[in-house]
Amino acid sequence: MTAAILSERDIQFMLYELFDAEKLINRARYADHSIETFNAAINTAQQIATKYFLPIRQKIDSNQPTFDGEKVIMIPEIKQALDAAQAAGLGATTADFELGGMQLPPIVAAMVSAYLTATGSTTIGYMALTSANASLIEAYGSPEQIKTWVEPMHAGRFAGTMAMTEPSAGSGLGDLTTSAVKAEDGSYRITGNKIYISGGDHDLNENIVHLVLARIKDAPKGTKGISLFIVPKFLVNEDGSLGERNDVVLAGLFHKMGGRGQTSCALNFGENGGAVGYLVGEENRGLMCMFHMMNEARIMVGTGAATLALTGYQYSLYYAKERPQGRLPSSKDPLSAPVNIIEHADVRRMLLAQKAYSEGAMALCLFGAQLADDSHTADTEEARKYAQTLLDFITPIVKTWPSEYGPKANDLAIQVLGGAGYTNDHPVEMFYRDNRLNPIHEGTTGIQSLDLLARKVPMNNMAGYSLMLGEFQATIEQASKRTDLGALAEQMAESVAVLKSTTELLLTSMLDKNIDMVLSNSVKYLELFGNVVIGWLWLKQAIVAVDALAKSPHESDRNFYQGKLQATRYFFSFELPQIHVWSKILTDLDSSCYDMQADWF
Amino acid sequence: MTAAILSERDIQFMLYELFDAEKLINRARYADHSIETFNAAINTAQQIATKYFLPIRQKIDSNQPTFDGEKVIMIPEIKQALDAAQAAGLGATTADFELGGMQLPPIVAAMVSAYLTATGSTTIGYMALTSANASLIEAYGSPEQIKTWVEPMHAGRFAGTMAMTEPSAGSGLGDLTTSAVKAEDGSYRITGNKIYISGGDHDLNENIVHLVLARIKDAPKGTKGISLFIVPKFLVNEDGSLGERNDVVLAGLFHKMGGRGQTSCALNFGENGGAVGYLVGEENRGLMCMFHMMNEARIMVGTGAATLALTGYQYSLYYAKERPQGRLPSSKDPLSAPVNIIEHADVRRMLLAQKAYSEGAMALCLFGAQLADDSHTADTEEARKYAQTLLDFITPIVKTWPSEYGPKANDLAIQVLGGAGYTNDHPVEMFYRDNRLNPIHEGTTGIQSLDLLARKVPMNNMAGYSLMLGEFQATIEQASKRTDLGALAEQMAESVAVLKSTTELLLTSMLDKNIDMVLSNSVKYLELFGNVVIGWLWLKQAIVAVDALAKSPHESDRNFYQGKLQATRYFFSFELPQIHVWSKILTDLDSSCYDMQADWF
Repeated sequence: MTAAILSERDIQFMLYELFDAEKLINRARYADHSIETFNAAINTAQQIATKYFLPIRQKIDSNQPTFDGEKVIMIPEIKQALDAAQAAGLGATTADFELGGMQLPPIVAAMVSAYLTATGSTTIGYMALTSANASLIEAYGSPEQIKTWVEPMHAGRFAGTMAMTEPSAGSGLGDLTTSAVKAEDGSYRITGNKIYISGGDHDLNENIVHLVLARIKDAPKGTKGISLFIVPKFLVNEDGSLGERNDVVLAGLFHKMGGRGQTSCALNFGENGGAVGYLVGEENRGLMCMFHMMNEARIMVGTGAATLALTGYQYSLYYAKERPQGRLPSSKDPLSAPVNIIEHADVRRMLLAQKAYSEGAMALCLFGAQLADDSHTADTEEARKYAQTLLDFITPIVKTWPSEYGPKANDLAIQVLGGAGYTNDHPVEMFYRDNRLNPIHEGTTGIQSLDLLARKVPMNNMAGYSLMLGEFQATIEQASKRTDLGALAEQMAESVAVLKSTTELLLTSMLDKNIDMVLSNSVKYLELFGNVVIGWLWLKQAIVAVDALAKSPHESDRNFYQGKLQATRYFFSFELPQIHVWSKILTDLDSSCYDMQADWF
Repeated sequence: MTAAILSERDIQFMLYELFDAEKLINRARYADHSIETFNAAINTAQQIATKYFLPIRQKIDSNQPTFDGEKVIMIPEIKQALDAAQAAGLGATTADFELGGMQLPPIVAAMVSAYLTATGSTTIGYMALTSANASLIEAYGSPEQIKTWVEPMHAGRFAGTMAMTEPSAGSGLGDLTTSAVKAEDGSYRITGNKIYISGGDHDLNENIVHLVLARIKDAPKGTKGISLFIVPKFLVNEDGSLGERNDVVLAGLFHKMGGRGQTSCALNFGENGGAVGYLVGEENRGLMCMFHMMNEARIMVGTGAATLALTGYQYSLYYAKERPQGRLPSSKDPLSAPVNIIEHADVRRMLLAQKAYSEGAMALCLFGAQLADDSHTADTEEARKYAQTLLDFITPIVKTWPSEYGPKANDLAIQVLGGAGYTNDHPVEMFYRDNRLNPIHEGTTGIQSLDLLARKVPMNNMAGYSLMLGEFQATIEQASKRTDLGALAEQMAESVAVLKSTTELLLTSMLDKNIDMVLSNSVKYLELFGNVVIGWLWLKQAIVAVDALAKSPHESDRNFYQGKLQATRYFFSFELPQIHVWSKILTDLDSSCYDMQADWF
C-alpha cells in the first residue's frame, strides 16, 4: 500500500455533494458532458500523474535546471511527462472543443489539475501558465493573434509566460521601465529586463509566448501607462512555421527553495536593437488585460496551494496509520506493543488541522472556480453578474487563505513524520518548499490584504461584501434547522457579527482617520475574513454530512461524513475563535506596527 | 554595507542590562573574568564567523555531504572553519581552564556560539555535540574515561555524537533494541542500527566518540533497561594514540531539508562480531545519564532556533531598509519616488513580529543558560536548588518556544524579501530550512508538551511551577510601579490568572477524568505557558527600557529602548491574547482531537 495522491472520496464529495457539479450539464456549454465524462477526465489525470509525474517527482526536486550560458539544461523526464499530459488533452481542459480543448467546467478542471499539481507542482506550472496566457489572448487579442498564438498553445506546440516583474518593480508594478517603441510595420520594439519569469526559457516547446508589460514611449507614469505585448521567443511566419529568433535572451536562472522543476528566469529584451512585440488590446490598458490573467492566476495559486496541502495531508495520514511508536499516556506498560501514531491525540490534532486547512481551502477554491464559471455560463444575466461580483470580491481570499494555510498544513505533515519528514526520503518537506512560494507570487499576502480592505470591500457600494454576507446568512439559516448543528450555526452567526462590526469600524475610520494607520493591520483583516469564509465552507460541508449521515447505509460513508463533522468541530474550536484576537487589534485601531519607526529596530 | 549577523547592541543589552552578567565575576569560578574578557570572547567568535563561516555558508548548503560507499565526502572548507574556531578556543567555551576550556559562564558562551550558529548552524553542530558529549562524560564517566575521551574532545582532536534513535525507536526510545553483551575484559560488545546520528561519520576529526544507548542482555523492557556506552570509531591505545577501527560502519547518509553541512547518518554497530563499548555510569541507568546531555541539548536547540531567528531578522531588516518598492496608501502619486519597504506598515509588522519572537526567544534561552549556571555556581545551596528546580521545570519551554517561533520568524523574513527571499541569492530560505529541524529533534513539540503538563507541572508538589509563578509576580509588581507599564502589567497579571485557572482545571481533571482525553490538548497548554513566559520576558525588557530611556542622553540608545518597548507592545497586542483561545480549548476539555477516529480521516 502507498499513500493516496488525493482522496477520491473527497473529490466526489466536493464536486457532487457540496457543489452539485452535475447540474452544470444542463448548461449549453456542457451539454456534451456527464458525470461520467467529468470523472473520466479526472481518472485520466490520476493515471498520467501516477505513471509519469509521481515517479520523477523526487528526481526533479534534486536536479534543478541549470543554465550553460546559452540554454537551459533539465532532466528529459520533464518533457516526457508534459508530453504525456498534453497528449491526454490535459493541457486545455477548459478550452473550447473547437480550439482543441476538453471544454470542462472549471470546477472539474480544478480536480484534473490537482492530480498533476500534487505529483508535479512545478511541471504542471508550464502548462498552467500556458493555459492562462492563452486565455488572456483569447479575451483581448485579435483574431489573428488568437490564430497565431493560442491555437499552438492549446496544441502543446508553444508555451506561454507572464513577464511582469523587473529588478526594481515587483509589488510596485507601476514603476516598471521596460520600454516599447512603435515600428513602421505597426509592431513594437521592446527593451528591458524582467526577472522571476516562470518558464521563461526552456526547450520543452517549439516556442515561448511571453506576455510582457512595458511602457510605450511618452506614456503616463505609473500603472496607467502600461501596455501589454506578445513577445515570442521565435518570430512566426505567416504560414505558422517558426521564423527568426527574437531579441529575447536568457540572462540567468534563479535557484529557489522549492518549485525546482520550473525555471525561474532573468530575461533580457532588446539587447540587440529591440525585441519584436505585438500590442494586445489598447495602448496603456495593459494592466487591465493582465489582470485577466492575474485574477485567473490568483485562483490557480490558491488551488495549487490547497492541492499541495491535500496531498501532504494524505501522505502524513498514510504514514500515521502505518508507523508504530510509543504508547498512550494511560498505558505506559513497556511490555505492551507500541501503537500506530495515529492513536496519539496530538498526531490526530495535526492530521485534523491538515484536513481542516486543506479541505477547507480546496472548498474555497472550487467555490471560486464555480463563480468564474457562473460569471460566463450561468443561465441568467443576473446570475452571471452575481457570480462576477462575488468572484471579484473574494479573489484576494481565494488567493491568500490557501497560500497561507497550505504551507501550515505541509509544516504539520513534516511534524507528523518527525525526523523522517525532515529528510528527502519522504516528499512532505518538498511540499512545504514548493508551497512556500504561494504567499509571495501573484500579489503577496500584504498586497492582497490591501486589495481586500481598501478596494474590494468598499467597491460598488459594498456589493461583493454584501453578497458574501448573504451567503453566510443563508448557510446559517440552513444549519440552524439541524439540531446537531445548532451550536455551530450560532458560533458562525457570532463570527459574522464580529466581521461586520469590525468592517464597519474600519470603513468609518478610513473616512476620518489617517488612512495609513487604519490600513496598517490589513493583513489581520484578511485573516479574519478568511477564517470566517472557511468557517462558512466547513458549516456548508457539515450540513451535507449531517443530512447524508442520516441516510447512509454504508459504514465507510458514515465514517467519511463523521470525519467532515469532526473537522468542522475542530475548525470551530481551534481556528475560528482566533478572529476575536484579530478583531480586537483591528477595532482598537492598534497602532503598534504603524507607530514603529525604522530607527527603533 | 551588509546585514549584521546579530545586533551587537542587543547582545550588550541582554547580557549586561537584562541579565546582569557582570555580577557573575564575583563567583569564584569566574573570578579571572571581566566584562572585557566576556566581550573579547564574543568578538573572537564574531571575527571567526565573519572570516571563516560566513563566506562558505551558501556553499555548504549547496554541497551536502555524500557517501561514496565507504566514507563521507564534504567540502574541505568545513574543516578549515572548524579548525579555526577550535584554534580560537571556541570549542570549549564553558569547560574548565584545566581541561583546556575558556571557563566562561554559559550565558556568555551562548552569545559566543550564537555568532557561529548564525553563520554556520550545522558546522557548529559538530562542535556543539562534541561539547555536550564531553560534558556528559565529565559528569558520569570514570576519571580514566574523562582522560581518554574528554580531553581530546576539548582539544578538538576527537568529535562526539549522541546515538539514540533507531529505525523503530524515535520518540518511543524505550523500545530500542541495540544490544550490549559484557566481554571478559569488562567492556561490552554492541550490536544494532542507529539512524539520524548527527555527525555520525566524517573525517573532520581523528576519532568520533559515540554515546550509544543500548540494552544489556536480559535487562528489563522499556526505559528502565537502557544503558549508556562510549563506542569510539577508533579504539584508543593506552598511550592515547589511535588503535584499531571499531566495528561501527556508516550505512548511509540522510539528505535533509536543511542543516546540510552536518552529516545525518545511519550507523551499523557490530556487523562483524560487536563494536567495543565502555559502560558509562551504572547498568540500566543510561537514560538518566543521557538526560544530562539531552537537557543540555534541549537548551542548545532552543538557543540555536532563537539565533537563526535573530540573524534572519537582522537580514530582512537590512533588506527592508535598503529596498525601495511601492508607495504608502496615502500617497499613490506615481511621480513620487518609491519608499523603502520598511515604511510599509505590514513590513514593519513582519519585522516587529520577528523582533518579538527572536529577542523574546533568546531572552528565554539566556534565562535558561543562567539557571543552568546558577544551579552549579550560585553562592548558596538554596539559590542553586532554586535554579535547578526552575530549570528542570522550564526546559520543555526553553526547547520548544524558540523552536516553534524561530521558524515562524524565518518564514516572515522570507516574506519581507518577497520573491528574492524564495531564491538562494539570500540566506533567509536556508535559515528557515535549517531551523525547521528544531521542533523535531531532542524531543518533538508533542513530547515536550506531555513532559510539561503531565510531569513537570505536578512534579515535587508543583515546586517548579510555583517558582515560575513567583517570578511572574515579582515582575508584575515591578512593572506596576512604572506609569508607562501599568496597562501591560495588568494584562500580564490577567494572563497569569488565565494560566493558573487553566492549570488547576487540568490537574483536577487528570485525577478524575480519562487521562488520554485530558492530555489530548497538551500542545495548546505548552503554547499557552510559552506565550505567558515570553510575555513575562518582554515585560522584564520593557522595565529595563523604560528606566534606561529616562536617563539615556544618546539618541541611538533612546531609539533602541523605544524599539524594546514597541516590541513589548506588539507582543502584548498581537501574540499574548491568543492564550484566551487556547485556554478555552483546554478548560472546555475540548475533545475534538481525542474523539477523532482513525477511520474518519
